[in-house]
Amino acid sequence: MSRENNHDLLVKNGTLVTMDRENRIIENGAVLIREGIIECVGLSCDLEKGFTGKVLDAKQGLVMPGLVNAHTHLPMSLFRGLADDLHLMTWLNEHMFPAEARYINSETVHLGTLLSCAEMLLSGTTCCCDGYFHESQVAGAVLESGMRGVLAQGVIDFPAPGVPDPARNVECALSFVDQWVNRHPRIRPSIFCHSPYTCSEETLKKAKRAARDRGVLFQIHVAETLGEWEQIQKEKGMSPVAFLDHLGILDPLTLLIHGIHVDDKDLDIIAHRGSTLAHAPESNMKLASGIAPVPGYLDRGIVCGLGTDGSASNNNLDLFLEMDSAAKLHKVHSNDPTVMDARTVLAMATLGSAGAMGLGDLLGSLEKGKYADLIILDTHKPHLVPMYNPVSHLVYSATGADVRDVVVAGRLVVENRRLLTFDLDSVLGEVRGFGARLMGDGRG
Amino acid sequence: MSRENNHDLLVKNGTLVTMDRENRIIENGAVLIREGIIECVGLSCDLEKGFTGKVLDAKQGLVMPGLVNAHTHLPMSLFRGLADDLHLMTWLNEHMFPAEARYINSETVHLGTLLSCAEMLLSGTTCCCDGYFHESQVAGAVLESGMRGVLAQGVIDFPAPGVPDPARNVECALSFVDQWVNRHPRIRPSIFCHSPYTCSEETLKKAKRAARDRGVLFQIHVAETLGEWEQIQKEKGMSPVAFLDHLGILDPLTLLIHGIHVDDKDLDIIAHRGSTLAHAPESNMKLASGIAPVPGYLDRGIVCGLGTDGSASNNNLDLFLEMDSAAKLHKVHSNDPTVMDARTVLAMATLGSAGAMGLGDLLGSLEKGKYADLIILDTHKPHLVPMYNPVSHLVYSATGADVRDVVVAGRLVVENRRLLTFDLDSVLGEVRGFGARLMGDGRG
Repeated sequence: MSRENNHDLLVKNGTLVTMDRENRIIENGAVLIREGIIECVGLSCDLEKGFTGKVLDAKQGLVMPGLVNAHTHLPMSLFRGLADDLHLMTWLNEHMFPAEARYINSETVHLGTLLSCAEMLLSGTTCCCDGYFHESQVAGAVLESGMRGVLAQGVIDFPAPGVPDPARNVECALSFVDQWVNRHPRIRPSIFCHSPYTCSEETLKKAKRAARDRGVLFQIHVAETLGEWEQIQKEKGMSPVAFLDHLGILDPLTLLIHGIHVDDKDLDIIAHRGSTLAHAPESNMKLASGIAPVPGYLDRGIVCGLGTDGSASNNNLDLFLEMDSAAKLHKVHSNDPTVMDARTVLAMATLGSAGAMGLGDLLGSLEKGKYADLIILDTHKPHLVPMYNPVSHLVYSATGADVRDVVVAGRLVVENRRLLTFDLDSVLGEVRGFGARLMGDGRG
Repeated sequence: MSRENNHDLLVKNGTLVTMDRENRIIENGAVLIREGIIECVGLSCDLEKGFTGKVLDAKQGLVMPGLVNAHTHLPMSLFRGLADDLHLMTWLNEHMFPAEARYINSETVHLGTLLSCAEMLLSGTTCCCDGYFHESQVAGAVLESGMRGVLAQGVIDFPAPGVPDPARNVECALSFVDQWVNRHPRIRPSIFCHSPYTCSEETLKKAKRAARDRGVLFQIHVAETLGEWEQIQKEKGMSPVAFLDHLGILDPLTLLIHGIHVDDKDLDIIAHRGSTLAHAPESNMKLASGIAPVPGYLDRGIVCGLGTDGSASNNNLDLFLEMDSAAKLHKVHSNDPTVMDARTVLAMATLGSAGAMGLGDLLGSLEKGKYADLIILDTHKPHLVPMYNPVSHLVYSATGADVRDVVVAGRLVVENRRLLTFDLDSVLGEVRGFGARLMGDGRG
């Protein structure tokens, strides 16, 4: 693997929201980083003694693990706002799939991914779990941005960008995995089947077998709409979740995305198999797909992460906003304001997402031995003062725009809200050009 | 009335989202302001000819009417994050009312209001509709901040901050109105009865009579929880809305806040009387109060505004986030992604709120003759490029942190994200001191 983090870093003078096993919040805290890994978490006055490396002053801001986005389609940032207030199937079939067929290629995937990475880093997300096409281009752009990602080549049983022949879809995904496995410490390859209604049984089984062979994460949209549930029920005589289980697809390295239309039996199956959930409440709300019974997942010990989905159905990648929505949606849906409390939701967007992606031991908290991915929030703002409870502020009051500095693998990638890894102005200019061409083609 | 805006201002080089009758969006647009009033809206190249006054360059950002917050309790920013994830009655009776009894006085009301005004202005809200106690202090702070407000002294039938004797509650409210009516063009006094379950019939009638005599807005929380609905149904034999109508309280200058537990008959009554609604979805979600049937209100032509509620139950005052939540909540609740489209929701947060507060002719759009309250958003950001549809971006992608400049009554009050009207650092310092005292008292 390549190395890029052989310098040390001390982040000091912050209030640490560690998300560790004891839920410690450490005032005047510091994090000592060596070679991209957290070596020590403690008091500033202790850790700075004798330290001679680079220092990042948190200036009394909040220091926390970088947020982890459990579900994205990164290049779709190019289509944000192109079509809103529509049913999922109208949105997909009449807007997104045609736009992808026409405009998605290896260059635009690279451009859209850079755009999404800039948005994510600037709003405090340091790692994401993606599924799209031309995923090698996604991986290249994620690397360039300085982010970390679990990145999956998409599999669908009709012609897709870069995969004109659906018969070769699993082969393409496998080739992507082989190309990226153990290539760079910030990238983990994965395979993403679009859904049980767009992939055949054979495709699903073949793709999962390939992922299992290589020991990589398998992702799939499942039980997203009532229509899907009805179709699978009619065709297979069982629920979408039971159908996947019947195919032998559910295991601890299967990440179920959305998981909305599930009953207690489905939840028991998921818990029994150890599969995980990526919950994307804002996309589910915007597309009126429904409300996943997340408290029911959590009650069964199912590992649940939080994701934004693509920014064309959200319409942003800010996980701070997603946390707020997740907490509030389940309270009003269950008539119980005590469910999904701030701590639970913050855990979902850090440890939960990391665990859902198979990286629970490596990400999601400020603890010795974990990847040094952390963010610093500037709290000298009218909506964050006074601060009785940092966890409450992170979930209910802050937005991504409060993130001041971002460190991934011990490397400073955002400093004082400026992205350090690539020329954002130039990318924004290219993206404007893309948008103008699309509008000029009469699609706007 | 005092005068403070005798200079002219030209805001130029922006994309204007006018919210006018034709829903015009004007590229390279400009707004010409004279003495705090919009004199002309058009193209930059036309309006800048011969103009010699002060110029504000929008630098190709989005220019739109300032957002209008239809429901606030401004001083409660001092209690943000003090108590979360609780039932409304537990939150009110065990946390908020005791905290208010102990810590709310004329000084802290002034301080908390300045804090809220800073947050609102910096997130693009230029006018709010408030109800609290020590409201003269609220008014002083709102004036100092440069904002506009419809501000109401609270009425409740038990001892309240500044009103130790409940027998004098309506008298105090009336005295506030008389003190502030026609005193300053940015302040309109109002009367706010807390609710049908905390005010007697006599109090409600007396307060509404006083408001009607003076021609000012009457505000009341109504049908917020199922518990309230059951109590009023049991005690009065009718729904809370029918009860208020029975008392003769519903007319076009009555603003109903929350209005969640209402049936078709209630909605018909409200429409018939011409009363208006302040919808506060995030507070309703967080407290699990329920979901107001806003599409049903709108179908009947009831004027609906959007509000945040106090920041202790939200927990911020960012109306951009509230718009996003409003749009998404009603989609998922009604299983229909086409309801509450972006345009409808943006209209609620501008024209709707203005209309709900009785200021529909004066506020909420960029049109000749209206108050010159406008905001400029910086769109040179990864989450706002490309921009196919400015209205979609305003509702689904932007946050208050994208607001760069704010003009109220023709006066620049936020420039390049810096508040110009008072010393924010000093206020934040005082607020930190308040928080530390509260925590020191063992309440934290």
